[in-house]
Amino acid sequence: MSENRTHVGKEKILEKAEKLFTEHGFQAVSIRSIADICGVTNAALYYHFEDKAALFAEVMKRHTQRLSEHLAQAGEAFESPKDKIYAMAKEYLRLVSNRQNFMFLIRHHGREIRESNPRSGFVEMVTDVLSPFDDVLDQAVESGDVRPFPEGYSGASILIGMIHGLSGYQRIQGGDALREEDLENVIDYFWNGIKT
Amino acid sequence: MSENRTHVGKEKILEKAEKLFTEHGFQAVSIRSIADICGVTNAALYYHFEDKAALFAEVMKRHTQRLSEHLAQAGEAFESPKDKIYAMAKEYLRLVSNRQNFMFLIRHHGREIRESNPRSGFVEMVTDVLSPFDDVLDQAVESGDVRPFPEGYSGASILIGMIHGLSGYQRIQGGDALREEDLENVIDYFWNGIKT
Repeated sequence: MSENRTHVGKEKILEKAEKLFTEHGFQAVSIRSIADICGVTNAALYYHFEDKAALFAEVMKRHTQRLSEHLAQAGEAFESPKDKIYAMAKEYLRLVSNRQNFMFLIRHHGREIRESNPRSGFVEMVTDVLSPFDDVLDQAVESGDVRPFPEGYSGASILIGMIHGLSGYQRIQGGDALREEDLENVIDYFWNGIKT
Repeated sequence: MSENRTHVGKEKILEKAEKLFTEHGFQAVSIRSIADICGVTNAALYYHFEDKAALFAEVMKRHTQRLSEHLAQAGEAFESPKDKIYAMAKEYLRLVSNRQNFMFLIRHHGREIRESNPRSGFVEMVTDVLSPFDDVLDQAVESGDVRPFPEGYSGASILIGMIHGLSGYQRIQGGDALREEDLENVIDYFWNGIKT
């Protein structure tokens, strides 16, 4: 029973902490503010997490594992690898463009957070986010639609780079977020670039 | 004579300030520390620049205009647009990967600097860096090698996104900087993606 309460407590903490980090950023949120919003003592938090960086790493891990499943599901309704990639990229873009989503924080302040927290699990986060795309690309390579990537490449990292390259350019020029047709164009460039 | 001294002074200030910003970042460098290293008073700096953000914006403008010319020159030795793009991208990558280069600061901390300084001239900076690439792409469109990009696109922003996508992925996995063959591969993907 006590073990069960501890488990519930941890999930609740992670959920509330994710909300706080998303709203206020990494620096501005303290162990104290998370404890306050959870209605527990600091000690209760330190029972579960070594420090704020460890707590943040768990929030991120929980979020990106779910995101990874969510993206894979977004692709499932489609037959062709290219259509799957498009559906997943659209969903990815929707989430990272939303200030109320934890991924917005990661996308826009990930570097600062990572540099101040070398143990923060960013490698796993990147793999979690890219893997649903890379899984589809692997299948497309196997079926002969796409040329194999060299060892150590993530095709998805190149695609996501293209998307953020164009969307960053348009944003800095004062434009809106990428439109669906822009995403279609970028995926066309990518697919034509890698196909057999 | 006095006017001439003022002019020389400004160039010298910009040069020394660029070095300081490159070494210590934007936040850590003050008007005072720039004045000290130039051997002038704070007032002498305020004669030329309204504040630190304005000084930084001029450092960046001076740097990226020169960079733009430098990249265009790196492409000049080559005939085909694709070879020009490769030569320019190689040079770009060499510079942004070098901690002793001002572009390293912009690449790695540009967002923080931009967010704390809305007037910092980042739009012009982005255009300066991308324009030598986009000029070559425009020529390739005119000669019929490459499909026209839609209104408001910078093809270069997509290419640079691809390069940073893969290099960021490899860096986070603990790998080295992009090798020449990786850059060749990325440019192949890009070129195949946009060609007619």
